[in-house]
Amino acid sequence: MILKTALIQQARCDSAEKNRRETAAAVRQAATEGAQLIVLQELHAGLYFCQTEAPAHFDQAEAIPGPATDFFSQLAAELKVVLVLSLFEKRSAGLYHNTAVVMDVDGRLAGRYRKMHIPDDPGFYEKFYFTPGDLGFEPIQTSVGKLGVLVCWDQWFPEAARLMALAGAEILIYPTAIGWDPTDSTAEKKRQLEAWQTVQRGHAIANGLPLLAVNRCGREAEPDGEGLIDFWGHSFACGPQGEWLGKASETPDTLLVDIDLAQSEQTRRIWPFLRDRRIDAYGDLLKRFRD
Amino acid sequence: MILKTALIQQARCDSAEKNRRETAAAVRQAATEGAQLIVLQELHAGLYFCQTEAPAHFDQAEAIPGPATDFFSQLAAELKVVLVLSLFEKRSAGLYHNTAVVMDVDGRLAGRYRKMHIPDDPGFYEKFYFTPGDLGFEPIQTSVGKLGVLVCWDQWFPEAARLMALAGAEILIYPTAIGWDPTDSTAEKKRQLEAWQTVQRGHAIANGLPLLAVNRCGREAEPDGEGLIDFWGHSFACGPQGEWLGKASETPDTLLVDIDLAQSEQTRRIWPFLRDRRIDAYGDLLKRFRD
Repeated sequence: MILKTALIQQARCDSAEKNRRETAAAVRQAATEGAQLIVLQELHAGLYFCQTEAPAHFDQAEAIPGPATDFFSQLAAELKVVLVLSLFEKRSAGLYHNTAVVMDVDGRLAGRYRKMHIPDDPGFYEKFYFTPGDLGFEPIQTSVGKLGVLVCWDQWFPEAARLMALAGAEILIYPTAIGWDPTDSTAEKKRQLEAWQTVQRGHAIANGLPLLAVNRCGREAEPDGEGLIDFWGHSFACGPQGEWLGKASETPDTLLVDIDLAQSEQTRRIWPFLRDRRIDAYGDLLKRFRD
Repeated sequence: MILKTALIQQARCDSAEKNRRETAAAVRQAATEGAQLIVLQELHAGLYFCQTEAPAHFDQAEAIPGPATDFFSQLAAELKVVLVLSLFEKRSAGLYHNTAVVMDVDGRLAGRYRKMHIPDDPGFYEKFYFTPGDLGFEPIQTSVGKLGVLVCWDQWFPEAARLMALAGAEILIYPTAIGWDPTDSTAEKKRQLEAWQTVQRGHAIANGLPLLAVNRCGREAEPDGEGLIDFWGHSFACGPQGEWLGKASETPDTLLVDIDLAQSEQTRRIWPFLRDRRIDAYGDLLKRFRD
């Protein structure tokens, strides 16, 4: 029941070709070291383009299946690994999603998840680019288990993790692109990073599931030079009690982490939260606000 | 907007009178030091009797209002503080609840919350004693703000915190009785304590609210001498980014913490999670399991 995972945390440049070359090399290296499940960061193909609202950026989107999935499908099949990608999906003219895609060991597209919660705040103008997902919160069945794949902003919403757990997900997985505003104070940066870690570890605990969060790193400038984001890296893995299993630093890194999938059963026996949920009293969770 | 709070963490003995004397003294002391909101631990009147299933323990329950609320109502009025109690409520013969009660500064019973999620695991046989609450997740309006009072086992359920936040709670409050099995390993104890802290800090973050958790401390033996619980103390307060505002140790302590209620507004502006909840896709949260 030990699943060998790799979390690939990278910095990106403006050459899609160089980015893909680096990613493929890191995936190959992780496979060589025994990884069975390899997770890439959010929108790993290039720079985080949502720092501005620029119609030309839609050119970076592509269909799924399409050239990117073809490439990674071949790679997954060659290396016999399960691969979690994060792509800018073009579904139709004027209809785009922020989509995670899972390739199984035979190269088959095992499933996709379209990011359900879309952020929009200064430097992260995602509501301009991404239509909120319409596939719901459905885990993706693979040869290494049922993967609860979510994306970035989803990581702040306990509802998303819970729905994945209730649907039988065996592990929660978050490709991510989050960083600091360099003008923020050191104290604020520390609070933000720790909050990001804590809320996700909280999902692991509340659901008795292991969790992988894979974040990009490196400084990226807004194209017109006004903004900067220091993507904070710090990809991590934790177990079903939220215990640390591995942590990356702020620089490019591949984190290799063994996950014991049998531990969820043990943890949920001592902490049987699923037994005691008050589903008779949760109706107002479907309201915007209780006013 | 600064609210001065006190978290009173105590060890208990088998004398109800001594326990109450100690609690009253600690409340007086906290009020002297300026506390406006004072929170007591779960079932503070005595030992944690749920280590066994003994019908005689129902004798400890009493009506609300009743002698205990009369006593603390007078104390709250005298000291002009808001007081959060946790009592064993007798509602009828054969019908008991684990109930938190809030007294306002004028001694008025501002409201009650009946613990909604009831645990039951070795050493914590609460399902024998407590009927699950039937008042739902409703914050209690007081002169110092709208209090999202929950109790112990509720602290593992993101749904409870979310429902309080959606109903306008300005602070989450958890009277608690949680401890270690002395036979567990040091590593397991560390995981449990950290999980307990982390999942609650996660609720603070996911909802942009400050949070107080007040736990008992001290070793308590099961009456027939078979079991032991080391109540781990570690009462704490955190802010709306989950940042630590105060932590107690494992021994009796009163934690005085200033809470800036205005910070939630600021935090929710940079992290507007309530804006982006996918209430159209949360329907299955009302299911036991999605199978």
